[in-house]
Amino acid sequence: MSSLDSLNHFNVLGEAHMVDVGEKTVTIRAALAAGEIVMAVATLECIESGRMGKGDVLGVARIAAIQATKKTWELIPLAHPLLLTGVEVELTPAYDPARIVCRSEVRCAGQTGVEMEALTAVSVGLLTIYDMCKGIDREMLLQNIRLLRKDGGKTGLWERDQTSYPPSA
Amino acid sequence: MSSLDSLNHFNVLGEAHMVDVGEKTVTIRAALAAGEIVMAVATLECIESGRMGKGDVLGVARIAAIQATKKTWELIPLAHPLLLTGVEVELTPAYDPARIVCRSEVRCAGQTGVEMEALTAVSVGLLTIYDMCKGIDREMLLQNIRLLRKDGGKTGLWERDQTSYPPSA
Amino acid sequence: MSSLDSLNHFNVLGEAHMVDVGEKTVTIRAALAAGEIVMAVATLECIESGRMGKGDVLGVARIAAIQATKKTWELIPLAHPLLLTGVEVELTPAYDPARIVCRSEVRCAGQTGVEMEALTAVSVGLLTIYDMCKGIDREMLLQNIRLLRKDGGKTGLWERDQTSYPPSA
Amino acid sequence: MSSLDSLNHFNVLGEAHMVDVGEKTVTIRAALAAGEIVMAVATLECIESGRMGKGDVLGVARIAAIQATKKTWELIPLAHPLLLTGVEVELTPAYDPARIVCRSEVRCAGQTGVEMEALTAVSVGLLTIYDMCKGIDREMLLQNIRLLRKDGGKTGLWERDQTSYPPSA
Amino acid sequence: MSSLDSLNHFNVLGEAHMVDVGEKTVTIRAALAAGEIVMAVATLECIESGRMGKGDVLGVARIAAIQATKKTWELIPLAHPLLLTGVEVELTPAYDPARIVCRSEVRCAGQTGVEMEALTAVSVGLLTIYDMCKGIDREMLLQNIRLLRKDGGKTGLWERDQTSYPPSA
Amino acid sequence: MSSLDSLNHFNVLGEAHMVDVGEKTVTIRAALAAGEIVMAVATLECIESGRMGKGDVLGVARIAAIQATKKTWELIPLAHPLLLTGVEVELTPAYDPARIVCRSEVRCAGQTGVEMEALTAVSVGLLTIYDMCKGIDREMLLQNIRLLRKDGGKTGLWERDQTSYPPSA
Repeated sequence: MSSLDSLNHFNVLGEAHMVDVGEKTVTIRAALAAGEIVMAVATLECIESGRMGKGDVLGVARIAAIQATKKTWELIPLAHPLLLTGVEVELTPAYDPARIVCRSEVRCAGQTGVEMEALTAVSVGLLTIYDMCKGIDREMLLQNIRLLRKDGGKTGLWERDQTSYPPSA
Repeated sequence: MSSLDSLNHFNVLGEAHMVDVGEKTVTIRAALAAGEIVMAVATLECIESGRMGKGDVLGVARIAAIQATKKTWELIPLAHPLLLTGVEVELTPAYDPARIVCRSEVRCAGQTGVEMEALTAVSVGLLTIYDMCKGIDREMLLQNIRLLRKDGGKTGLWERDQTSYPPSA
Repeated sequence: MSSLDSLNHFNVLGEAHMVDVGEKTVTIRAALAAGEIVMAVATLECIESGRMGKGDVLGVARIAAIQATKKTWELIPLAHPLLLTGVEVELTPAYDPARIVCRSEVRCAGQTGVEMEALTAVSVGLLTIYDMCKGIDREMLLQNIRLLRKDGGKTGLWERDQTSYPPSA
Repeated sequence: MSSLDSLNHFNVLGEAHMVDVGEKTVTIRAALAAGEIVMAVATLECIESGRMGKGDVLGVARIAAIQATKKTWELIPLAHPLLLTGVEVELTPAYDPARIVCRSEVRCAGQTGVEMEALTAVSVGLLTIYDMCKGIDREMLLQNIRLLRKDGGKTGLWERDQTSYPPSA
Repeated sequence: MSSLDSLNHFNVLGEAHMVDVGEKTVTIRAALAAGEIVMAVATLECIESGRMGKGDVLGVARIAAIQATKKTWELIPLAHPLLLTGVEVELTPAYDPARIVCRSEVRCAGQTGVEMEALTAVSVGLLTIYDMCKGIDREMLLQNIRLLRKDGGKTGLWERDQTSYPPSA
Repeated sequence: MSSLDSLNHFNVLGEAHMVDVGEKTVTIRAALAAGEIVMAVATLECIESGRMGKGDVLGVARIAAIQATKKTWELIPLAHPLLLTGVEVELTPAYDPARIVCRSEVRCAGQTGVEMEALTAVSVGLLTIYDMCKGIDREMLLQNIRLLRKDGGKTGLWERDQTSYPPSA
């Protein structure tokens, strides 16, 4: 937790605004986020077998995640529009518990960071998996959506202390 | 987990398509989803005090969540466009751990369900909170985004077994 | 002014929601809105001559107005998505003062009205004229954007009392 | 009125195009626009009391106005996409006549101005107020939507002559 | 060519409007469109090998095509918003000349047809292939984008006379 | 066909990503694309007469084409968002066969090219003509949508060899 004591999306009257970043330097910005969708073992097996022979759940989710980064400024009211220069999304099956882990890295040169773009990519990628598998498993659960690393800007590199928050982080 | 053994977003060749729901009956559909963003105690206190006097983090997040329901078909590649008739979003501060709990209920009359709309509302509402508070707490964590209940359609009412998946569900 | 005494976009806790219209009857809805952009005489002459021979300011504004009706639910946070069945936009030059008058009529069959769609069409049509003419006249002024008539729904036909609010209405 | 005698959104054949601004210098751009929605006294009282205890009409309208600046290039056919760096929206109740005054200031570093973004913010903010209050007052009227000031670009600072156009400007 | 002698997207003054379809009956609508992208043999081989082992050009294009059907009303100014119930997209490699053939079938229950949705799906699917392969083949060519069949509405079934227009149709 | 032998929209695992262009130099980018819609002679005559007196099919199509350039990054999953600085669209009637030829030139200063924006403009412009004329001619055919020239970036100027691909190119 930083030493700041106020939320800078509000002005002195407490009214929301889009923070003026016009004075900030243009630097290379990067952010890495991750999260997972926990599911029944049978659901994961279905996705994995589908990847081999038929349906490509993870391929569709990857595209949805990439496209979501470009819509972040539409979804998050006070986010700034940004010209993203690169997006990578990785979707990895894992067991115990059965889940798909999504990681997304976003980069741009800009006056504000791309944390929200990376987190939005992860969220929408996982929601797309939910959508494609909900016919067989309504109990799936999105978990641990979080920022792992960000770089650029005045505060420079930040990395999550992987021991600080619990579960499968 | 249902007895179905295939993912109906893929045809017999395993290629993604938007499932034809044209033969389904139009019924009243409803879905209730929930999730939470876990944060430092100081962050939650900052949000709560802001709500009283100045900045309205939860008010902005509620609007973002409502609007996201209307964009679900744009975000989720194989989701159908739907005419939502009602959306409610509830954002509740809680402690141990410090967090904001988001619940969203979505309703429409249609040929397919609104589960994705409710889950998208919760996700975007929580991401908006992250955006507005990230200046003071980058370690916030989205948790337990899940469907609690859905009604309508051929399968009718379904309610989550609240004992099945762990944490604060 | 109706006899209602509360704003139905808020629930009992005063939190915004998208009002549930699921119980309302589907009826034919129509709304007619109008407004104008007041400008220098030379600007209006430029638009009018352009219409004859070269540039079609009003043709572009008409398209922008029609398209805006389809984006109303994206712009107005608590508006419902609707399946519009028809949109007409009329742009008429007038003098004393020099201005373009925009009128838009929108129709649909639905559970809620199309007043916002008609008003949004007028606003965006007039803004488009501003955009195309601002190079020669920054002082243009949008005026008198208002609902003239609405029909359908529980309250049926309503027509504006043209004597109630002043100017060129 | 400037000394230019043609509309630069049209080429020599009078066909609309998106004006090429590629040769223009990148400068800091700012624009301030304003407008108001005139309403019944009882409606304004309802909004004001709601602000205190329950529903936050102005909070929702402020968010809608901010988001609209990011959609201006979608709404106005020949507007250029821009990377806005800051947006502020102010909504102030006033009496005689009863109204909410909206002012919006938008900033970016770019090759073209942000006048349309500021005017679109004001228009959508006022339309959102109409939407939320139309259940009790259909006669509300959007008035005096205009540019007050713009800065940056080749022509530099411009300020509206507040005496030139009439009413409550 | 039908016996109609006027374009119904214009009113009697020749001004564009969104045709009112409110009086039309709701019927099941379907449309099948097709088109192709002609390319160098080496490009096609690269796509085909990619499909087997690595990159899935056709999988990404299929998703883009499906999503484009949901944005047709945004792209085509006078198109009506529609609630699509099903979309299928088929992408088939062919030789002599080397090409990918795209076919898309769209269905809905509505008051107007889905021809534009099917044609837009084909166009965007082929453009996506162009995008993903342009690094190795800028000369690719989109060809023969056309309606093959439509059903529903007052005019009922229509099928293209496959002998009427030439090439590889 | 270039000497590259792989599709750079896929990483080494064959998974789609948005290629990182952050290391590329910002240069002036331009692209010129073209295509045509072939139609019955009577349809073309109807468009041409309409242009003179009443409906402006080509005016509406031009606006749709311009606006589509600004939505290219939404339509094409792996396309980068770009700040376009200029767009021109030309729609020219021609005979033998009867057709409208669409050419579009797009420009920006950026780290990646605008080929997709120019091709998307042409496609959407032609689709809009189809939409407005389909009531009298369902057999219209989009043909020869292709890149004619691009400039800027590491590879600099490229011009299509007009003899390489057949028909009316």
